[in-house]
Amino acid sequence: MRLSRYFLPVLKETPAEAQIASHRLMLRAGMIKQASAGIYSWLPLGYRVLKRIEQIVNEEQIRAGHIPMLMPTLQSADLWRESGRYDDYGEEMLRVTDRHGRDMLYGPTNEELITDIFRSYVKSYKDLPLTLYHIQWKFRDEIRPRFGVMRGREFLMKDGYNFDLTKDDALHAYNRHLVAYLRTYERMGLQAIPMRADGGPIGGDYTHEFLVLADTGESEVFYDSQVTDLTFGDREIDYDDVAQCQGVLDEFTSRYARTDETHDAALFDQIPEERRRVARGIEVGQIFYFGTKYSDALGATVINDKQEQIPVHMGSHGIGVSRLLGAIIEASHDDKGIIWPEGVTPFHCGIVNLRQGDAATDGACADLYAALTRAGLEPLYDDRDERAGAKFATMDLIGLPWRITVGPRGLKNGVVELTSRKTGDSVEVSAEDAVARIVEIYRDI
Amino acid sequence: MRLSRYFLPVLKETPAEAQIASHRLMLRAGMIKQASAGIYSWLPLGYRVLKRIEQIVNEEQIRAGHIPMLMPTLQSADLWRESGRYDDYGEEMLRVTDRHGRDMLYGPTNEELITDIFRSYVKSYKDLPLTLYHIQWKFRDEIRPRFGVMRGREFLMKDGYNFDLTKDDALHAYNRHLVAYLRTYERMGLQAIPMRADGGPIGGDYTHEFLVLADTGESEVFYDSQVTDLTFGDREIDYDDVAQCQGVLDEFTSRYARTDETHDAALFDQIPEERRRVARGIEVGQIFYFGTKYSDALGATVINDKQEQIPVHMGSHGIGVSRLLGAIIEASHDDKGIIWPEGVTPFHCGIVNLRQGDAATDGACADLYAALTRAGLEPLYDDRDERAGAKFATMDLIGLPWRITVGPRGLKNGVVELTSRKTGDSVEVSAEDAVARIVEIYRDI
Repeated sequence: MRLSRYFLPVLKETPAEAQIASHRLMLRAGMIKQASAGIYSWLPLGYRVLKRIEQIVNEEQIRAGHIPMLMPTLQSADLWRESGRYDDYGEEMLRVTDRHGRDMLYGPTNEELITDIFRSYVKSYKDLPLTLYHIQWKFRDEIRPRFGVMRGREFLMKDGYNFDLTKDDALHAYNRHLVAYLRTYERMGLQAIPMRADGGPIGGDYTHEFLVLADTGESEVFYDSQVTDLTFGDREIDYDDVAQCQGVLDEFTSRYARTDETHDAALFDQIPEERRRVARGIEVGQIFYFGTKYSDALGATVINDKQEQIPVHMGSHGIGVSRLLGAIIEASHDDKGIIWPEGVTPFHCGIVNLRQGDAATDGACADLYAALTRAGLEPLYDDRDERAGAKFATMDLIGLPWRITVGPRGLKNGVVELTSRKTGDSVEVSAEDAVARIVEIYRDI
Repeated sequence: MRLSRYFLPVLKETPAEAQIASHRLMLRAGMIKQASAGIYSWLPLGYRVLKRIEQIVNEEQIRAGHIPMLMPTLQSADLWRESGRYDDYGEEMLRVTDRHGRDMLYGPTNEELITDIFRSYVKSYKDLPLTLYHIQWKFRDEIRPRFGVMRGREFLMKDGYNFDLTKDDALHAYNRHLVAYLRTYERMGLQAIPMRADGGPIGGDYTHEFLVLADTGESEVFYDSQVTDLTFGDREIDYDDVAQCQGVLDEFTSRYARTDETHDAALFDQIPEERRRVARGIEVGQIFYFGTKYSDALGATVINDKQEQIPVHMGSHGIGVSRLLGAIIEASHDDKGIIWPEGVTPFHCGIVNLRQGDAATDGACADLYAALTRAGLEPLYDDRDERAGAKFATMDLIGLPWRITVGPRGLKNGVVELTSRKTGDSVEVSAEDAVARIVEIYRDI
């Protein structure tokens, strides 16, 4: 993309309403614009990151054998009356009345609707196991929306639902989700720690929240420092292998790691003192096993191999897709701007032309752009008629991991400058080498 | 995808509530399930087609130089009061009140919101031209939703908005959209005819609707039969070339083609009688140039090169993404089920195993599946323990364009059967040839 033809409205001023870094930087980098309280338009740059995050979530869900579909944003109130949650949910549920006076609501989650779909079609244990998921906009009418996309009202969430014949099968689905989530967050450059949590309005005794450590996190967390040494890495997983998935769960959840809702001071004190950590965390996902809570309420049963009609065991599993942008920025920025991990960057690299209008530098930049594009990468070429300082400031603010700087002096020596946004380190290399290095960096991402 | 692990709830009975073929077939093929009146869940098969259509729309918009972003579903009423449309829109607009008593609405379209974004950031003619678009769920509270996704209440639409300095520039944007839309529909296997239409609540004198001819269409249309001889084909287009885009518009709109709203009987009668056609059409898109209607109302101005502050010229351009599934099925089905055009099919081909459990046929099917997958294609393998007749009926119903049938008798002779859903014609070829043919068919799609 050539910046002269793009829409990237960066702001020079820091918006007064933004209290945390991610909110400030998303506004300043022209990623989002508030449409009304807690509701945002995703400007082109922000939208690109949102789509990349969505794509990673999708790929990892499909890899785990889960099936994508899509439920609508507006739901009938009837199903929520059937489950008993219509009145329980309180003022965070946005209630709507249509022109015929029917009670509807903007879905804050989808246990009822997915269970209705399941009970309409699935009658036999032979059709199990089944895990369906979707990525859809949700609404929670927060009394005080704040922190930008971190606590918005209209937000994008991946929510998945497993249907299983037995508790053991459902716990395997739970473990599968834990594994898939670990992979998902790591691909985004995040360390998200599974912590024992509370079921809240979804319900269920088995539940883990995934938290990214950050000073601006909304939750106080308590953990054994050994948990931060764990990484999933590039190990191979067979999602049908019950023992293997259980092994990953055991490895990642056996050490103490809890949110304040489930914190147990006595247990915590048993950790050697030098490993005890109290910090703050941003919740980026949660998995639940809640047994037959919804299948009982809504009559979601199957016939088992003994011809008995039994309720299915269920769980639900969510990732806060739009809020992840905020979490990633909180975890990865400096005083100049955002530092995108390669997995979610909106463009793979930036090209800065130091002398726009000069035939040689323009030509070299165009060649670089073409070479990167041919290699399947998406560069952002700053071809505006601006000073070098302004171009560097924009690139630093929007946080592309790599920048190639092209100027007349370097070209005379046959080199361009390749700069890491994270370290600030630069090397002078030929244009061909710069392309080859960028291609290599993104090979497995 | 192996069918035994998929969620494809096909129905044997024809649902009583469905009056037209596309609605019936989408229900029977397990593509959608009604959640409430005019609101649908997209089951996995339907969701796949929806995503393919969305992808084609995206690719053609980006090719035309238009920039993707995303606006929220819920909007503040204030902007609509500013444009004067809050009261005008009537009961089709779903009005919502949040917990603080603020008036909001579920966006039926986005002229106000995009104009607000534009006016917040763009101040100079140097930042023009600019065309932004998004693909987002909309809501229109139809009094009698019907015909499935063809006239739903919650529906997915691509809407794009151009901002230009002059009327001429804006008309070039209009032409660019016409070209991009012609390409878009043709890639979906549709002939959509641009017809002179009426501005309706969007406004504007320049507007064309794109209509797919079908007996079940909601609009009566009048046209010169020569318009159906036109195809865009694979011609190359430079979207920056004003004359070339104008040429396409002239070619596709110079003959008489109008909806009943703008029909002129006297003009129509001037067409030679044998070329006069009266038919019905399904509206699948519309483009508008409406000048400064919204920029005047909302104060969206730029400074031109004479330092004058002038309102920008605008247009909006919509494609009914979810309704396209219905339109495609109306145009392409038979009494056995759907016939997907290759451009939008949910899976590239089906594999039918005639003797599930037989080691040789199971092995041959697994090899075929692997070979197609390696070639970048997505087959649907019916590996259920079902009779051949039931497997064929399912494949015909869901409408994959190509089917490979594998049975013990054929394997003895070293052949499988490759069948076209459209013609019903079969050929016996080796498994390698079957893969090669399928790969060839999808090479340019």
